[in-house]
Amino acid sequence: MQKYYYLCSVNEYSSILLTNAVNTFSSLPGTGRKTALRYALNLLKRSDEEVEAFANTILRLKSEVHYCRLCHGISDTEMCPICLSHNRDHQTVCVVENIQDVMSIENTGQFNGVYHVLGGIISPMDGVGPADLEIDSLIARVAPENIKEIILALPTTMEGDTTTFYIYRRLSSLNLPLRVSQIARGVAVGNELEYTDEVTLGRSILNRTEYNGIQNH
Amino acid sequence: MQKYYYLCSVNEYSSILLTNAVNTFSSLPGTGRKTALRYALNLLKRSDEEVEAFANTILRLKSEVHYCRLCHGISDTEMCPICLSHNRDHQTVCVVENIQDVMSIENTGQFNGVYHVLGGIISPMDGVGPADLEIDSLIARVAPENIKEIILALPTTMEGDTTTFYIYRRLSSLNLPLRVSQIARGVAVGNELEYTDEVTLGRSILNRTEYNGIQNH
Repeated sequence: MQKYYYLCSVNEYSSILLTNAVNTFSSLPGTGRKTALRYALNLLKRSDEEVEAFANTILRLKSEVHYCRLCHGISDTEMCPICLSHNRDHQTVCVVENIQDVMSIENTGQFNGVYHVLGGIISPMDGVGPADLEIDSLIARVAPENIKEIILALPTTMEGDTTTFYIYRRLSSLNLPLRVSQIARGVAVGNELEYTDEVTLGRSILNRTEYNGIQNH
Repeated sequence: MQKYYYLCSVNEYSSILLTNAVNTFSSLPGTGRKTALRYALNLLKRSDEEVEAFANTILRLKSEVHYCRLCHGISDTEMCPICLSHNRDHQTVCVVENIQDVMSIENTGQFNGVYHVLGGIISPMDGVGPADLEIDSLIARVAPENIKEIILALPTTMEGDTTTFYIYRRLSSLNLPLRVSQIARGVAVGNELEYTDEVTLGRSILNRTEYNGIQNH
């Protein structure tokens, strides 16, 4: 308890500048005060030019970044390279929560369609409703009947399922000849059944797929 | 291997600005590219003012920071609060590697002397020699015979031991009535002997201390 008191004191770092830097760095996600201090001391060891370049990169990222007007992913130009590509299937749209998910799916090399980045998922606990997300723009994108399939690739959490269901309902009300799918849920490749949670295992039996002698992976 | 290739590609993030920001953040110690990306995307969600404040804190830290001219710790003023304090024992100097160690020792509440921050330890592998550290200033500080004891509180690694021995030799050559000590090494409080490494356990037997019936902790 005594230690905790010390760590919370204002003059902890014998310098207000250092305290401010630690406070600033520890505002980053998943970063504690010890890590923040390491960051600050690491920057102090660098040259003036390096620290200026560090700060400028952050400022430029914020001031010059663009969001693709079609998929709402981060881009340097008005439209991102994926949305502009002629080699991609523009009739298949994969709906994801954020840009990290785009990268994860791209890394699999299994998808050749385009994306739609919602910028979050519906989460009443965090005050995020449908209007805060790029759902209206998804509906607007689908409406001209140029899209064949929407793949909903959202997290398999309660919030993810809520968002999936909400988008499904909105899409259904359009009465378009559109296939709406969601990514498969089941036992992860390489996992033992013994250590798979009950809900996943139960669902994987209900949603079993035809076996034709071909290994999936 | 394919995944690795993807993660190393330049256009990984579909934006050069974002790639630069990830490269910048991943230059911080112990920060991988996934964490760096989380940091960059977190900053993108903040307001312009918040991001400017973030960058300014970093710039100010570098441009306005002072190092105490006596102990070489970080300070807002020419001398740090510890070196200026009338309540501290200025005849006992604890030599440490860096400012984190000052904080760790301060948090124990067991030391009322002053510090001397070397700014590193001798490490030929990293190209750090005695001249790169605040060793000359330590010798200069000791020379006027106003110091009674030097406590060497350096890491118990090969580099730490080398630095301890180097400073000890330099101090001995001064021929001053000075006590030179090093922090105790032994079995950590709360540890089982069974799980203590052999070197530590062996040393703790060789360097056993008199037991007088009083608990140390």
